Amino acid sequence: MPIDGATRIYAVIGDPIAAVRSPEWFNTLFERRRVNAVLVPLHVAREDLAAAFHGLRAIRNLDGLVVTMPHKGPMCALLDVLSPTARAVGAVNVARRDASGRWVGDMFDGRGCVQGLKRQGHEVTGRAVFLLGAGAAGAAIAYALAEAGVRALDIDDHDVERCNIVADTVRRAFPQVQVRRASLDAASPPDLAINATPLGMRPGDPMPFDPELLPSSTLVVDVITKPEVTPLLARALSTGHHVHTGGFMHEGQALHAALFFGFDPQR
Amino acid sequence: MPIDGATRIYAVIGDPIAAVRSPEWFNTLFERRRVNAVLVPLHVAREDLAAAFHGLRAIRNLDGLVVTMPHKGPMCALLDVLSPTARAVGAVNVARRDASGRWVGDMFDGRGCVQGLKRQGHEVTGRAVFLLGAGAAGAAIAYALAEAGVRALDIDDHDVERCNIVADTVRRAFPQVQVRRASLDAASPPDLAINATPLGMRPGDPMPFDPELLPSSTLVVDVITKPEVTPLLARALSTGHHVHTGGFMHEGQALHAALFFGFDPQR
Repeated sequence: MPIDGATRIYAVIGDPIAAVRSPEWFNTLFERRRVNAVLVPLHVAREDLAAAFHGLRAIRNLDGLVVTMPHKGPMCALLDVLSPTARAVGAVNVARRDASGRWVGDMFDGRGCVQGLKRQGHEVTGRAVFLLGAGAAGAAIAYALAEAGVRALDIDDHDVERCNIVADTVRRAFPQVQVRRASLDAASPPDLAINATPLGMRPGDPMPFDPELLPSSTLVVDVITKPEVTPLLARALSTGHHVHTGGFMHEGQALHAALFFGFDPQR
Repeated sequence: MPIDGATRIYAVIGDPIAAVRSPEWFNTLFERRRVNAVLVPLHVAREDLAAAFHGLRAIRNLDGLVVTMPHKGPMCALLDVLSPTARAVGAVNVARRDASGRWVGDMFDGRGCVQGLKRQGHEVTGRAVFLLGAGAAGAAIAYALAEAGVRALDIDDHDVERCNIVADTVRRAFPQVQVRRASLDAASPPDLAINATPLGMRPGDPMPFDPELLPSSTLVVDVITKPEVTPLLARALSTGHHVHTGGFMHEGQALHAALFFGFDPQR
């Protein structure tokens, strides 16, 4: 559908912006559903977020935002209403204007990850998980894994303080889950080992963890989408592990985001 | 071309926004020229312009704006640099970010109108013109007609003060042109009679002026695009006049705006 004066606007905001995949995904959905809407990329630097969002709020045909790095955390302070998950995790990946004009944020990085695993037949309920990374994505994944009923969750991050905060938050919300701040323990290996850091996006990044320490029964998971097969996953494949690429999490996030914006992509 | 993370953004801002035609025009141009860019409509109310533009400035992949009612005048105070025409007229219809990050405005309503007339074979140099309307569009048209060398220009507006300001500005810039604030004078009829007011957009609007007072040699011009044949033009046709619709002016504006954004639409 050609864009005209009545087209409703959605945007993805981030920095850098060139590699985002939301425009293709959402515009294909709008096209298929014959919705007169478009999603465009908006390149906003960290220090400009407050001014940019203050201005975006004033655009009356702007209905929703996909929020990506580095704005997932800072965006929380600018929104009027946060979902329980967004509040717990301290980050959002989507925001929309509600009927009364308030901007509401939610966080689907974690549920997207869990949904991506389930859709590929990987059960998480009752499983033991090692998660590296306690940033916005890692925190959301930790929360969603606990919500989905994992048995045990070890979280590691070079930032000990934020790692403790995430572990404490998840433990408080889901006391039945055994949550620890702990590095990868080869003596009692997890069922799933997840990289939720950016390590592997740039050539020369160190390996987030070494799959050779893990038995071949451990599923090795990465949240990075570019490259699709990260050095971590390539190493894991070479050592006989099953792997799960970042694309599945992003597909899961996008499905949740579309529902949040009021479109059922499965219909 | 599908929109992706590297797509450059242009927008048209106005209120109301639903009837704007810039998205179709520019997106067709971008498509034809294989430019990875998109122009979207942004609905911004008068009282929100300053906040919205402050935010839009912070979007680093936003390269240009088409500015429409009611923002053409107020936008001047928000831009860093104005063209001589924009300064004289006190209004802009386009703005873009320059290489040093400043936002530069220009006003092509008038030149668009003159170009539209010329492209249809209607000479303006040496002619006598009656112009109704001294708002942003009227002022720009008055300025461009004088610039193009009309012999005489009578300008009328219900707001006597702004009409005097426009007449004085044009007279100062083009002293060789005989400029007056004057209502339509049937005793010495003009070669062109132009409606630059919104009268005729809404059903029940009064006629801006009566073409029956004019000889059939007078070309009757309207700047309104919807409806294409306004009640004024319909009446003029019924009284045997040649007419010139608003679409030609808007085509002329769009050609100028595209050049201003760095795309030559004729190439």
